Amino acid sequence: MKITALAGGVGAARFLTGLARIVKPEDLTVIINTGDDINLFGLHISPDIDIVTYTLAGIVDEAKGWGIKDDTFHALTTLKTLGVDTWFNLGDRDLATHIYRTNRLRQGATLTEVTDEIRIKLGLKTCLLPMSNDHFETKIKTPQGTMHFEEYFVKHQCKPQFLAAEFDGQATAKPAPGVLDALSDADLVIVCPSNPVVSVGTILSIAGVRDALLRTKARVVAVSPIVAGATIKGPADKMLNGLGIEVSAFGVAQFYADFLDAIVIDSRDAAEQTRIAKLGLAVKVTNTVMKTFDDKVALATAVLQA
Amino acid sequence: MKITALAGGVGAARFLTGLARIVKPEDLTVIINTGDDINLFGLHISPDIDIVTYTLAGIVDEAKGWGIKDDTFHALTTLKTLGVDTWFNLGDRDLATHIYRTNRLRQGATLTEVTDEIRIKLGLKTCLLPMSNDHFETKIKTPQGTMHFEEYFVKHQCKPQFLAAEFDGQATAKPAPGVLDALSDADLVIVCPSNPVVSVGTILSIAGVRDALLRTKARVVAVSPIVAGATIKGPADKMLNGLGIEVSAFGVAQFYADFLDAIVIDSRDAAEQTRIAKLGLAVKVTNTVMKTFDDKVALATAVLQA
Repeated sequence: MKITALAGGVGAARFLTGLARIVKPEDLTVIINTGDDINLFGLHISPDIDIVTYTLAGIVDEAKGWGIKDDTFHALTTLKTLGVDTWFNLGDRDLATHIYRTNRLRQGATLTEVTDEIRIKLGLKTCLLPMSNDHFETKIKTPQGTMHFEEYFVKHQCKPQFLAAEFDGQATAKPAPGVLDALSDADLVIVCPSNPVVSVGTILSIAGVRDALLRTKARVVAVSPIVAGATIKGPADKMLNGLGIEVSAFGVAQFYADFLDAIVIDSRDAAEQTRIAKLGLAVKVTNTVMKTFDDKVALATAVLQA
Repeated sequence: MKITALAGGVGAARFLTGLARIVKPEDLTVIINTGDDINLFGLHISPDIDIVTYTLAGIVDEAKGWGIKDDTFHALTTLKTLGVDTWFNLGDRDLATHIYRTNRLRQGATLTEVTDEIRIKLGLKTCLLPMSNDHFETKIKTPQGTMHFEEYFVKHQCKPQFLAAEFDGQATAKPAPGVLDALSDADLVIVCPSNPVVSVGTILSIAGVRDALLRTKARVVAVSPIVAGATIKGPADKMLNGLGIEVSAFGVAQFYADFLDAIVIDSRDAAEQTRIAKLGLAVKVTNTVMKTFDDKVALATAVLQA
């Protein structure tokens, strides 16, 4: 069974480690959001690609959900000494990835190629695809101004009021090679428990992606990132609310309803089952909060059953 | 008294720490070799500028003579995991300098400007000038092929036979702003105990530099990097030999004779004093091997007296 997953960062990565345990890693393709990509100190940083790669490779800093475990921050501290605004945390080991990627991109490699090179070096068999190799930048409109998603998320810790998400480059960004085929050829498409607006929404905004999801013969199953009216991590609840979407598993189901066949929701949201079913979707109720590795495997199993 | 020094890496940097103790740092200008500059992993590395900067700032790894003390090498180790050939050692703290420099250069700053920015952030009052802001690459011709100086020096540890030094870009490289003025306006010009061929020789090869040295009203004093027929560090002896130049304090004096007024030689080479004097040069004999900080100060004092 060929599976394609749409993924953002931490939530998706955690879910995918469970999934990778119960399916053949080589049967799994992950399409990853690149809207958070940012250039800092001249380095091309792909936060979501790195989180998914590091997590699947078992080298992620589990507590943080990003970066490499046991990393040091000596380069960043020194950059600060040199007067650089170092609001984005980059460990020394992590920096190697960004140095490598930036150098390969400057040499003319595509983000797809670089992502694949890193995946292979880290011994992963799962296919990791950036959603696009073209410029795409998620910006958050707030009363304090419009800022890059990572500035909103990391520098300002999601404190400014969310007014809207803007996708710079969306009109011209093409899906990366393999993205549309991975959706068309899959037996199962999984929308990971990621931010529907700025993680999955960005992927859905790429020309051809939504259409491929509507046409695919694959069953399309989402995992709701909203549990009991809130997110486990990140600003998805604030953003859905800001967009006038109900902050609930039902709201998520409705957001994806046009291409979705089933949704996995948390036991705490079991009461929403009937409303979601009325959207014409199958609903699977289970524990979706992944605290342990067993939680991740159990959730992945539930998704395969949905 | 305004002093301008011509400098390569470790030997020059050690000497300059002594000099900076006995003269006002702000009266000192150092013109630094950039022939060793190399692009690795997309980063612009200026080995001699960094050695001089770190040494004067008191943050150099004293034992190695390069890099920052107590540095870690996590990024480099990770780059190796990613398949990168990591023959050039770059510590994590050191990497910050290269990331900063590369980014500033890409933003359009000159190497002069970046060098000055780093100097200021590290609290140095001594003016540090790259010899040129233009492409200049020292290549070493060997029976195994022609290679970048750092490849010859670090990767191959000076083992291949030295046939010749080639200065890529020498014909078009202009002196960086301030370089010629620093030579013309100085009261004393010091040629540091650096490699005459690939550290000082590169600076001398820049259009206008040799002429400025011939015309300057300043007294021009060199410190011989050759002691008892050999170098303290580095391949200057092999190179002088390969070029058919006598590997001795006399050989160095002769190499610089056209613009030199005086040379400081080691006590072990006292016998060469008469031969050197016949070149029309004043000779100062003293201990030139800098083991302690006091050695450095004593040598600097001897140079001021020469």
